[in-house]
Amino acid sequence: MSWSGWGDPAKSRELPEQVRKLLHDFLGVRAPEAPAVTLESVRLPPIALAEPQVSALAGVAGPDHVLTSHEARVRHTRGKSTPDLLRMRAGDGSDAPDAVVLPGSHEEVARLLELCARERIAVVPFGGGTSVVGGLAAARAGFAGVIALDLARLDRLLRVDAKSMVAEFEPGVRAPDAERLLAPYGLTLGHFPQSFEYATLGGFAAARSSGQASAGYGRFDDMVVGLTVATPSGDMELGRAPKSAAGPDLRQLMLGSEGVFGVITALRLRVRRAPAERLYERWRFASFAAGREAVRAIAQEGPLPAVLRLSDENETMIGLAKPETIEPGGEAGCLAIVGYEGRPATGRDVADGSAGGGIPLSTRRDAVAAVLARMGGEPVGEVSGKEWERGRFSAPYLRDALLAAGATVETLETAGFWSDLPRLYDAVRLALLGELGSPLVMCHISHVYETGASLYFTVVTAQEDDPVAQWERAKAAASTAIVEAGGTITHHHGVGRDHRDAYAAELGPAGVAILQAVKSRLDPAGILNPGVLIPRSG
Amino acid sequence: MSWSGWGDPAKSRELPEQVRKLLHDFLGVRAPEAPAVTLESVRLPPIALAEPQVSALAGVAGPDHVLTSHEARVRHTRGKSTPDLLRMRAGDGSDAPDAVVLPGSHEEVARLLELCARERIAVVPFGGGTSVVGGLAAARAGFAGVIALDLARLDRLLRVDAKSMVAEFEPGVRAPDAERLLAPYGLTLGHFPQSFEYATLGGFAAARSSGQASAGYGRFDDMVVGLTVATPSGDMELGRAPKSAAGPDLRQLMLGSEGVFGVITALRLRVRRAPAERLYERWRFASFAAGREAVRAIAQEGPLPAVLRLSDENETMIGLAKPETIEPGGEAGCLAIVGYEGRPATGRDVADGSAGGGIPLSTRRDAVAAVLARMGGEPVGEVSGKEWERGRFSAPYLRDALLAAGATVETLETAGFWSDLPRLYDAVRLALLGELGSPLVMCHISHVYETGASLYFTVVTAQEDDPVAQWERAKAAASTAIVEAGGTITHHHGVGRDHRDAYAAELGPAGVAILQAVKSRLDPAGILNPGVLIPRSG
Repeated sequence: MSWSGWGDPAKSRELPEQVRKLLHDFLGVRAPEAPAVTLESVRLPPIALAEPQVSALAGVAGPDHVLTSHEARVRHTRGKSTPDLLRMRAGDGSDAPDAVVLPGSHEEVARLLELCARERIAVVPFGGGTSVVGGLAAARAGFAGVIALDLARLDRLLRVDAKSMVAEFEPGVRAPDAERLLAPYGLTLGHFPQSFEYATLGGFAAARSSGQASAGYGRFDDMVVGLTVATPSGDMELGRAPKSAAGPDLRQLMLGSEGVFGVITALRLRVRRAPAERLYERWRFASFAAGREAVRAIAQEGPLPAVLRLSDENETMIGLAKPETIEPGGEAGCLAIVGYEGRPATGRDVADGSAGGGIPLSTRRDAVAAVLARMGGEPVGEVSGKEWERGRFSAPYLRDALLAAGATVETLETAGFWSDLPRLYDAVRLALLGELGSPLVMCHISHVYETGASLYFTVVTAQEDDPVAQWERAKAAASTAIVEAGGTITHHHGVGRDHRDAYAAELGPAGVAILQAVKSRLDPAGILNPGVLIPRSG
Repeated sequence: MSWSGWGDPAKSRELPEQVRKLLHDFLGVRAPEAPAVTLESVRLPPIALAEPQVSALAGVAGPDHVLTSHEARVRHTRGKSTPDLLRMRAGDGSDAPDAVVLPGSHEEVARLLELCARERIAVVPFGGGTSVVGGLAAARAGFAGVIALDLARLDRLLRVDAKSMVAEFEPGVRAPDAERLLAPYGLTLGHFPQSFEYATLGGFAAARSSGQASAGYGRFDDMVVGLTVATPSGDMELGRAPKSAAGPDLRQLMLGSEGVFGVITALRLRVRRAPAERLYERWRFASFAAGREAVRAIAQEGPLPAVLRLSDENETMIGLAKPETIEPGGEAGCLAIVGYEGRPATGRDVADGSAGGGIPLSTRRDAVAAVLARMGGEPVGEVSGKEWERGRFSAPYLRDALLAAGATVETLETAGFWSDLPRLYDAVRLALLGELGSPLVMCHISHVYETGASLYFTVVTAQEDDPVAQWERAKAAASTAIVEAGGTITHHHGVGRDHRDAYAAELGPAGVAILQAVKSRLDPAGILNPGVLIPRSG
């Protein structure tokens, strides 16, 4: 993973000439004054931990698993939001942890939490490091130091219960490795967020991730049937049955807790049979409003496809609606991607049960197509599996090229009920346009429910002298607009530090009090991810 | 509602001669010595509240809405478990509230909580009064008195958002009234638990109810998209979007909270289009194990029917697998009921969208039938809509006739993952057989998930001299078996007082500490449903 950008540096992308021209002509983007610094020249604070504390950490995790090198600290500094990248490119490593600790077992995690509580060392649980909401930058004040608790060594598939369709993993397993480990069993999680290549299962759970195929496979929180959690006040084993009436569902209190209540050390996840067939199609609608009504009809009447994503007019025009290309196509109307995964309609493997039963892909496709056509959609061709594979995780790579060219590009997202969605869409767009002059604001719906949907915005604007401050103003305006228009501050990015105040407004004082009460009981020393998620006052 | 039994006394059922003979010959049931007492002769404790306290309650809710009559107190005493009924039939009203208070608005609820916290009056939120787990019997010790907070006056449909498919209700709406209020909109909740005729929406949410059509419509907790809750520490509005990554899902902390954290004063519920067509069929399997594997295949391969219930050999033999009859049929093997609800396959209303899209009922039926047949099932005929309607809520009426005849009949339930289910089934049966001598133990699977299912046991045994103590021993043995075999102590009945200790074992100390922390913060005086749900110590 690039320390100052996204992903494998070998996969970095050049901006097509068309895009450069667009940035220059329409957004007024000019090359930035200062190029990105080198890793070696990132400025880090001195290590605050005392030598005996570092030794004590090594006493639990082993001396090879406590890292204090410049590079290790840089690579565990913050996450991957655009402000995070801009700060790193400028050499600002002020949020670096003092040390990186890599425990090898649940027991080591538990002992490290005990040690850190005693020594008042703040602990930032670290999975793939892909937070885009400031979820990895702990508030240092009042602590002897900060460690990144990197869960990379907890990377095993522990158990497959094929009868229950449950697989148990350790939290540090990255998403591609989870799929690789499940493949020999003919199973899949079906969880493909844009962070797929780097993010971990523990991180998905801690931040309530949602993926590109969530319409078909469910959100990550839908997949979690059990959790093992280490807290400074003891362990928890949650989930003795798929569903229960035994009190509140405490799994749902740990999902989305972003490391502030405890550290997830094992996850029991619902898995699915890997699909034998895939089909991705593109549909065109006259307008975003028309397409929105069509995807609403699908969400409410069913059956849901595996993938359902509708771009607005701007995103369609710029070409981001086509995952395989970033060249502006000037397409009219709005494009939707509709993907199906499942079993073929016929064959001996169906009759003998080896392909599973259920409704064949083609039958589901026809039912969806009938609704989309009724709602004014027009099918405009298949997307090849190759195009889809190539394009599905490419956007974050594009961002690095845009940043280097002097453009700020960032995303933000929300969700709301269907009847609130038009107002929410307008409010966020207006806030961004008002704050940033004449940025390019694009949007898509990528997660639909019977009662509502997500809105995912991508903003491109020319960098001002202080691009971090510039974006923070825009983000604040968008967040206020979301809260006022009745949406949730985040559909799948999480809260971190960036959304904490808006989250408090969303929760209200009694909700905030609940979080603070749980926090005080499980983590009385307050060492776990301080400053993240939990609002400071009710 | 009968004060000492279930439901409308006019619907009470006589035991068929065949059943009487079976009870006598096989279970040794003899008529009980003492018949049930009259309502007037139920023994109640003196009213503990002081006159100024009763006046203060009347000052908030109005003098007509504070009841202290003998009848009102009897009718709000405990719930509808078999021990509850046995105690009432014996004239034991020792758990009666001192007064019944009927607030007319959210504001009155909030003011009553404030008043009761100040005066240390325990508050038992009361919906339909159908708890079967001791959820309505507050622990009096340390309180000035106990009131039942009957939410019957909060009985309005507040809003229908047809675009979002969300309806907002007050909590005291009974399930049949909810359906009646939604019918003009062509909508339904699709929630039909056995308590349907009396239970309220607020109660469904507070106790995580599951209904007979939950396979198709989801559990009640799946339907809740938003809640308004009044707590002694302020109000909460939860749910700004169908799904969110904004921290833990606090709706899931209130669902299943059984009135100990606050009082639900409004619910925003996902609704569905009322089905145009219904079809219920009966299938036969050679054994419970064979049927279990078949319903597992359906749950994992899809599509799910709306209703899916599989009886074991005993339940099939006794005839309880047929909802329309209680006559023992001596049927071989195991019967399943498979019900479909949806739209017909053809017609102009489909083409123009007025019937909705999606997969037609017959297509889904064929896909399910193919899987069931592959797994060894044999279709044995349709159940008419009338039979289904007549039978679906009849079992609790039957119980009263059995109790009067000298038999104890009670139900208990659990859920687990598929691979644990055989062990769980055996363990509970063995525990009941061991404790009760030679009772009749029947079981069915009525709620299936991809990763597991529920087990619902019905036990019939001859009453001993102290039938309450007799059942409590059996229940304790079954609960221990459930905990040891890895199941959850309840799939849809809830925790109440009866499951509290087993629930503590299920949660573990850290989980218990979370509940206690939330309770202390929201209800510092501890007035809400004391003794229910929350284990006394970690």
